[in-house]
Amino acid sequence: MEVTRKNFKESLNAIYSAIEEADFLAIDGEFSGISDGPSVSSLTNGLDTPEERYQKLKKHSMDFLLFQFGLCTFKYDQSASEYLTKSFNFYIFPKPFSRNSPDIKFVCQSSSIDFLANQGFDFNKVFCNGIPYLNQEEESQLREQFEERRSQSNGSQSFISPSSCKGPINVPDEQKDFVNKVVEKVEGLVKGTDKSIHLEPCTGFQRKLIYQTLNWKYPKGLHVETLENEKKERYILISKVDDDERKRREQEKQEKEQGELNDAVGFSRVIHAVSKSGKLVIGHNMLLDVMHTIHQFYCPLPQELIDFKEVTMCVFPRLLDTKLMASTQPFKELITNTSLAELEKQLKESPFKPLKVESAEGFPRYDTATEQLHEAGYDAYITGLCFISMANYLGTFLTPPRAHISARSKLIEPFFNKLYLMRIIDIPYLNISGPDLQPKRDHVLYVTFPKEWKTSDLYQLFSAFGNIQVSWIDDTSAFVCLSQTDQVQIAVNTSRYAESYRIQTYAEYMENRQDKQT
Amino acid sequence: MEVTRKNFKESLNAIYSAIEEADFLAIDGEFSGISDGPSVSSLTNGLDTPEERYQKLKKHSMDFLLFQFGLCTFKYDQSASEYLTKSFNFYIFPKPFSRNSPDIKFVCQSSSIDFLANQGFDFNKVFCNGIPYLNQEEESQLREQFEERRSQSNGSQSFISPSSCKGPINVPDEQKDFVNKVVEKVEGLVKGTDKSIHLEPCTGFQRKLIYQTLNWKYPKGLHVETLENEKKERYILISKVDDDERKRREQEKQEKEQGELNDAVGFSRVIHAVSKSGKLVIGHNMLLDVMHTIHQFYCPLPQELIDFKEVTMCVFPRLLDTKLMASTQPFKELITNTSLAELEKQLKESPFKPLKVESAEGFPRYDTATEQLHEAGYDAYITGLCFISMANYLGTFLTPPRAHISARSKLIEPFFNKLYLMRIIDIPYLNISGPDLQPKRDHVLYVTFPKEWKTSDLYQLFSAFGNIQVSWIDDTSAFVCLSQTDQVQIAVNTSRYAESYRIQTYAEYMENRQDKQT
Ligand SMILES: Nc1nc2c(ncn2[C@@H]2O[C@H](COP(=O)(O)OP(=O)(O)O)[C@@H](O)[C@H]2O)c(=O)[nH]1
Ligand SMILES: Nc1nc2c(ncn2[C@@H]2O[C@H](COP(=O)(O)OP(=O)(O)O)[C@@H](O)[C@H]2O)c(=O)[nH]1
Repeated sequence: MEVTRKNFKESLNAIYSAIEEADFLAIDGEFSGISDGPSVSSLTNGLDTPEERYQKLKKHSMDFLLFQFGLCTFKYDQSASEYLTKSFNFYIFPKPFSRNSPDIKFVCQSSSIDFLANQGFDFNKVFCNGIPYLNQEEESQLREQFEERRSQSNGSQSFISPSSCKGPINVPDEQKDFVNKVVEKVEGLVKGTDKSIHLEPCTGFQRKLIYQTLNWKYPKGLHVETLENEKKERYILISKVDDDERKRREQEKQEKEQGELNDAVGFSRVIHAVSKSGKLVIGHNMLLDVMHTIHQFYCPLPQELIDFKEVTMCVFPRLLDTKLMASTQPFKELITNTSLAELEKQLKESPFKPLKVESAEGFPRYDTATEQLHEAGYDAYITGLCFISMANYLGTFLTPPRAHISARSKLIEPFFNKLYLMRIIDIPYLNISGPDLQPKRDHVLYVTFPKEWKTSDLYQLFSAFGNIQVSWIDDTSAFVCLSQTDQVQIAVNTSRYAESYRIQTYAEYMENRQDKQT
Repeated sequence: MEVTRKNFKESLNAIYSAIEEADFLAIDGEFSGISDGPSVSSLTNGLDTPEERYQKLKKHSMDFLLFQFGLCTFKYDQSASEYLTKSFNFYIFPKPFSRNSPDIKFVCQSSSIDFLANQGFDFNKVFCNGIPYLNQEEESQLREQFEERRSQSNGSQSFISPSSCKGPINVPDEQKDFVNKVVEKVEGLVKGTDKSIHLEPCTGFQRKLIYQTLNWKYPKGLHVETLENEKKERYILISKVDDDERKRREQEKQEKEQGELNDAVGFSRVIHAVSKSGKLVIGHNMLLDVMHTIHQFYCPLPQELIDFKEVTMCVFPRLLDTKLMASTQPFKELITNTSLAELEKQLKESPFKPLKVESAEGFPRYDTATEQLHEAGYDAYITGLCFISMANYLGTFLTPPRAHISARSKLIEPFFNKLYLMRIIDIPYLNISGPDLQPKRDHVLYVTFPKEWKTSDLYQLFSAFGNIQVSWIDDTSAFVCLSQTDQVQIAVNTSRYAESYRIQTYAEYMENRQDKQT
């Protein structure tokens, strides 16, 4: 189901109940770009530490916009032995909801935009009808703004604002005439038979003076509000009201404001519901999805990885990454290509079993034969399918074998909260709910050289040492993994008198880096 | 006429000849945002110097994308006493043209995007079918790349690449087997009757080794090229060729590359043509348009304003800004609102004369009654109309009065190369072809204060000094213009012992700023 600003409010209950009844959820995001700094290959060095990788992604990926969010809910129907799915494809855009709301800037990367354009992505839907959102801080700021306005407006209990309650307000000389004329008019209103008057459009500063003056002179019996005419000019309407009328208007205003607040929080409400459900959330290669989701709908990402893990566990208490699952035993041996599309294909073949999955009533069917890859809702759906296939495969090892393994089974617990780390040679995943693996890197050299060098020059330099593995850092440096640890010292020693290049051990390199940072 | 990547090449001649025959050109750009830093009001302080304003716009506006460009050409038909117009509305997008091309990142501002979305702007057209472009440096880099490849490839005269001409190349141990097998195959090809063989897909590094090895072993008689199969894998095709065949293929390749280069330069060719024509280029409030055009299609903007003026005069030797014209005598008295839409309306009424303007054959008519404002092509068209109305009005002052004033008339020269400066109190324009006005600012104070202060606090502080004018700089500082210069010293003196705020003269402020900069 496609969800835009146009049908968001009316779909919200359906979304909430889909989440509520689900056994697990699958998610996927589409972004306006991946890296605003280095090329993706140097963004993902083969020997990054988890902390480094987090810092790089935080620095170079978070200014992009998550503008499509896929959510697919999976509910197991015991009687029919099948899963029922409800798939939602949300278009997201930070439309400013009022003149004072934050004016978000986001970056687009032309290669990513071009890629999505080629997939038939509908940018007009994003930019014209995307659902707005607020993070938690913006939400409470807006709430406070509303409350402040309410407590200042002359209809509420503390109708005299703090700054004006001590007596007549300061009106600048050149505004005195203006304000006096308004007071005269209001005097006429109070004494006459008219119910209300509207003033000519005027500046915000003048409106403020009017509010303050009337608050002070007429603490009761008047309702003052700012309206807009057809020319979008703002003017003030002043009405005589009795107490009941005043209360009714206040209530109305309050409800309207609550509605506006809800509209502004917008898509974040869906993420709040996912979070509150505590359900298992599945993604494919989902680290960036999780980072963007938290960054955009909760709070700016914390400085340190350890704090990010903590926030993540609050927002998504149980995560599972199908790319990590597919790269782990017993799947590793069976699956040659873990990209989502290829994984989905391979899981349709033996030894994996065909799935019984149906779209719930009223939800359009996705057909995996005619791929709609890279639409977030479809990708989330496929990701869920992959999870079910792999989970069920684990059931075949039980005695007796079980055809269906639920999202609550102990068998899948080993995969919880481990997010796939792309292209790191020796650390397969980021462990969200604990410390990370710390592989020995004592066979690794850090080599610096002139920028003319190519991979072949490195191969040649180390030709005496057998097989090597090169991870480029930038133009003039790379990590080189030797096949044998005892060669490290030899390499370092022979390089001592070299002029064009320099070799350090990985340990020396890390020490230097830490010195530089502190 | 709408121009996208799809019809760009076939439209190019029409565009060129429209420019060639025109009496003047009008342009307009739409951007993905205006300011990525401060709010627009502090981006445009009322007391900026021209240098400051340039720096601010350069820093805070150039990361946005100019993604729609309007060009409207105006040609006067003497016999019919009317203008013929050709209007082009270009969609622009930096689609990466190959795997090695620059991957542009650009910023979007949600308020601008939302504004355009509400005008019915078609983002899909931009992102799916936008015309690519290169600036001058990117163009020459690409040209060099092509030339380098050509000079390295084994078909051209210097077919042995510099790095491999000195003998057998260095093949890393683990690649030797691979390369030897290829050489065996090629040996078979050379001796056998087959015309060509294609190799299995392999890595870029392996392809490089193949190129180098074959260059060295078979300097003549072979044509080697990289192709792509249906799976997008790259493989090498090796063909036996005689000298004629080799030359023919070289020529073909060269023409293909020239075509690719032209495609990549794309929309920049239109700006080159505008520039080369030397024609009068009209815009409305056009400083940002000019800056973006130069930045995107020529070169990164220079550090200093004076160099920017020089570059601008090279690219656009004659500019005219209708907003500046409308704000200058004799129009200033007649025109109350100089925004493009309002200006156009006012110029339809007395004392201005109705215009005779027609769309050239084959070009769709714009109807100013049903506005299509904020489509760049339409805005350019309207801008041209405004210019004509105002120019003709100047003709009424001649004796005898003249109904038509051409773009070459001396009467409009006073308006040349003066670009409207938004919201600067005392400097109406940026003078592109000379030094800027240097108004005295000896009635101006620089005031700093706690961030709780409001405009009203400033009015109160200076209540003894009569009328003042406030220009906010940021949360805690503002310029205050006094109505009388002799009050400046009094204000500074009375502030000497103040604790919460500080007052300096404008001269002191400027001195401090320069000290800080050097
Ligand atoms: N005391 C008081 N001031 C208000 C109230 N509403 C608006 N104002 C003030 O009047 C100014 C004008 O507000 P408004 O007419 O809503 O639009 P604005 O000009 O865009 O801010 C605001 O900046 C507030 O400082 C109110 O309910 N009570
Ligand atoms: N000497 C020589 N090397 C080439 C030529 N074309 C490509 N190469 C090299 O082979 C590598 C592979 O090139 P290519 O197959 O076009 O695609 P790539 O793998 O994406 O760079 C390139 O990076 C070049 O270094 C050529 O014409 N002559």
